[in-house]
Amino acid sequence: MDVYRASATITMNQTIQIGPLFTDLYELTMAASYFDHHVTGTATFSLYIRETDKRSYFVAAGLEDVLNMLHKFHFSEDDLGYLRTTGLFSDAFLSFLADLGFSGDVFAMPEGTIFFSDEPVLEVTAPIIEAQLLETFLLNTIGFQTLIATKAARCLHAARGRPLIDFSLRRTQGWDAGIKVARSSYIAGFEATSNVIAGKIYGIPISGTMAHSFVSVFGDEAEAFTAFYDTFPENAVFLVDTYDTIEGVRNAIKVADNMRKKGHCLKGIRLDSGDMVELSREARKILDCAGFPETKIFASSGFDEFKISDAIERGGKIDAFGVGTKLGVSADAPFLDIVYKLVRFEDRDVRKLSPGKITLAGKKQVFRKTDRQERFIEDIIGSREEIPGDAIPLMKKAMENGALVDPIPSLQEIRNRFGHHFSLLDEKYKNIYKPARYPVAISPRLLEHQPEFPGSIKHPEKRSLP
Amino acid sequence: MDVYRASATITMNQTIQIGPLFTDLYELTMAASYFDHHVTGTATFSLYIRETDKRSYFVAAGLEDVLNMLHKFHFSEDDLGYLRTTGLFSDAFLSFLADLGFSGDVFAMPEGTIFFSDEPVLEVTAPIIEAQLLETFLLNTIGFQTLIATKAARCLHAARGRPLIDFSLRRTQGWDAGIKVARSSYIAGFEATSNVIAGKIYGIPISGTMAHSFVSVFGDEAEAFTAFYDTFPENAVFLVDTYDTIEGVRNAIKVADNMRKKGHCLKGIRLDSGDMVELSREARKILDCAGFPETKIFASSGFDEFKISDAIERGGKIDAFGVGTKLGVSADAPFLDIVYKLVRFEDRDVRKLSPGKITLAGKKQVFRKTDRQERFIEDIIGSREEIPGDAIPLMKKAMENGALVDPIPSLQEIRNRFGHHFSLLDEKYKNIYKPARYPVAISPRLLEHQPEFPGSIKHPEKRSLP
Repeated sequence: MDVYRASATITMNQTIQIGPLFTDLYELTMAASYFDHHVTGTATFSLYIRETDKRSYFVAAGLEDVLNMLHKFHFSEDDLGYLRTTGLFSDAFLSFLADLGFSGDVFAMPEGTIFFSDEPVLEVTAPIIEAQLLETFLLNTIGFQTLIATKAARCLHAARGRPLIDFSLRRTQGWDAGIKVARSSYIAGFEATSNVIAGKIYGIPISGTMAHSFVSVFGDEAEAFTAFYDTFPENAVFLVDTYDTIEGVRNAIKVADNMRKKGHCLKGIRLDSGDMVELSREARKILDCAGFPETKIFASSGFDEFKISDAIERGGKIDAFGVGTKLGVSADAPFLDIVYKLVRFEDRDVRKLSPGKITLAGKKQVFRKTDRQERFIEDIIGSREEIPGDAIPLMKKAMENGALVDPIPSLQEIRNRFGHHFSLLDEKYKNIYKPARYPVAISPRLLEHQPEFPGSIKHPEKRSLP
Repeated sequence: MDVYRASATITMNQTIQIGPLFTDLYELTMAASYFDHHVTGTATFSLYIRETDKRSYFVAAGLEDVLNMLHKFHFSEDDLGYLRTTGLFSDAFLSFLADLGFSGDVFAMPEGTIFFSDEPVLEVTAPIIEAQLLETFLLNTIGFQTLIATKAARCLHAARGRPLIDFSLRRTQGWDAGIKVARSSYIAGFEATSNVIAGKIYGIPISGTMAHSFVSVFGDEAEAFTAFYDTFPENAVFLVDTYDTIEGVRNAIKVADNMRKKGHCLKGIRLDSGDMVELSREARKILDCAGFPETKIFASSGFDEFKISDAIERGGKIDAFGVGTKLGVSADAPFLDIVYKLVRFEDRDVRKLSPGKITLAGKKQVFRKTDRQERFIEDIIGSREEIPGDAIPLMKKAMENGALVDPIPSLQEIRNRFGHHFSLLDEKYKNIYKPARYPVAISPRLLEHQPEFPGSIKHPEKRSLP
């Protein structure tokens, strides 16, 4: 139903251009109707994640892409040509779109910020058509990158200081996902990625060794290792499980003996199948006995926060983990219930009352109370203009009248922010199995501004700001 | 470990250029070592999906992107410049890459083909460096699009003829995923998508109505409906659950009465929350009593094949479904165990023997036996050069010496192929809860070519070709 057939068929090429047409059609049909009826007032939309029992905190990511997109928001001639072919839109509306840019304000938590369900991570205030047209793009961009940064943080926590490397590119949900997983996991403390294009785009350290096919091509395992070492004498990590893991370790040692004679040391071996705990312990013993205590054991194969944690608890001798598919698609929770809701239009606060989908009306801010060591104690969702006392407001003005307020931070700054925040979040909230619920309250002032407040939302405790 | 730090940091813009750097680093390090050691022989790699209890069949998708990419495979100056900064690669190797294109052959199942686990969906034969460098890209591209086309086919089956519309863009895993979900679900019989950019790129019909915010802005529901109808008199579908669904239906009827006076009919109402079965039955009754039997009921809200099936079985009066997030991320199975394995190098068949990860050596073909009505009876994985009798070979030569063999089929042709195939697959294999296992055998000839065959793979029955 409600199907509009378009005539344009363009053969795909390898470039994806993301612009205002990255949207659900209904954003445009609503815009057309607003335009027809001279509905031009200022609206505020709030972007937040509804509660899920799969995640106890979130790591904000994706704002850089959002700001870049808003900065250049513009319908091209080509876009307008396509919209014309749908037969849905008046010439007057299409002319209006031709001149449209983003002229509004964006309040947002900087990337790398730790936050919780129901807390707005971003709010847009703009003429309603502009604010509405962004919905699909904002949900997709912030939603996915936050999903992955959060999954990566869970892996980081589980690894207890051991380095993690993103290996997900081959199994991510498409091209953009692969690139963003590398960025999001780097924000959340990963050491490197196997993803070369992400290395190029973002300057993320890249990492890689060899596949089973390499060993198969040489046939003889020791010969394959020798060839690889020969090309990368400083960076040799040998994959030892193509035929038999323990045999593979012995072959690696044979080659490492020769390397040592030439003044090089074997950086590591990689395990990629079988019982990682047993094999890593045995490999460690063999390496140590053979005089290679410095050779690291690197493991990959279905790792996520649960398998990492389990391997460490069961005494696996693993020095670093390659984390692939289950990180790259956030396999245990492949989407977030992220929404973008109208909370204010012109001079009135607005919210939706559909069952189970209650929204907090009004422009908001999130205030974080901390102890003397800066550790996080409690968050309070309040009205934007509340005075926080010594609580820290988490959302910052990122865009004003369509212009950037501050330069976009570097990826390193973002990564550092995450690291700092993560160190201030108590262990009990980070537990990957049974996390405690971090306290999030709603300020009395914000509560007062909820007309017909049904009193049934999740954090009903009244707390006062400090 | 094995971390190479790159100096380049490029600010993201909204264009993603997918080329040879869309790869795991190890493809390049292996290539460098092959280059150093003059390993230049011809290799065949086989792309297939390992068995999963979540899916009983697969729908091939993604080949168009693959052929487009291979056709243009080329390292740009910029790519080479980045690789140089890593300090990993010799000038000689980088010069070699500068001149590299894809000169090999591709055998593949056309998009829209139904296939099964362990069956090769694509095989590449090329000089080993070329074939190896494609691994990550091929796995990502074929894997994701096949994942979604398969999920969409399951939804189609569950809907028993009712139209389905892709609503997933806001929650897909990134931008490319959103676009490819629209295409993959259209291949698998979806009617349309809400995704405007996919409509533009692929000519897929687009569809959309209004959001809750639209109703909130007008405050009065009937006023919002009237405004929308006013702009889209021929395409009005009203979202009725912003405040109270049944009230919403009554408001829709009020407006529809006025529309009728002007010669227009209300196409439909949309339900987006609450008990879809109960609400749709009540809404149907109210609409029918009020004299609007022609007004369709459209439902969205967490649908996937299971919820669609359940809603229909429980007597929901739903005429069409919007299928969003759970389709867009294939929520119950967000990745496939898809692999790309070396099966032949120079003149010998090759395979990996790692535990649980057995590969069938040699160049292959998949033969499908059908009955007189063309219905699928059994598949046989055989050697490429076997003579099939009256079984149908499913893989076709798509590229020869780096050139396309046939023009890339239109999306409509691909969709038709899927529709035809799907009609020939027995219901019992399509069951979304407890599907029967479709018989896949290995030809005696292929079995004979498995040196040291461990005899422990999944389909050990010996079957002869007809």
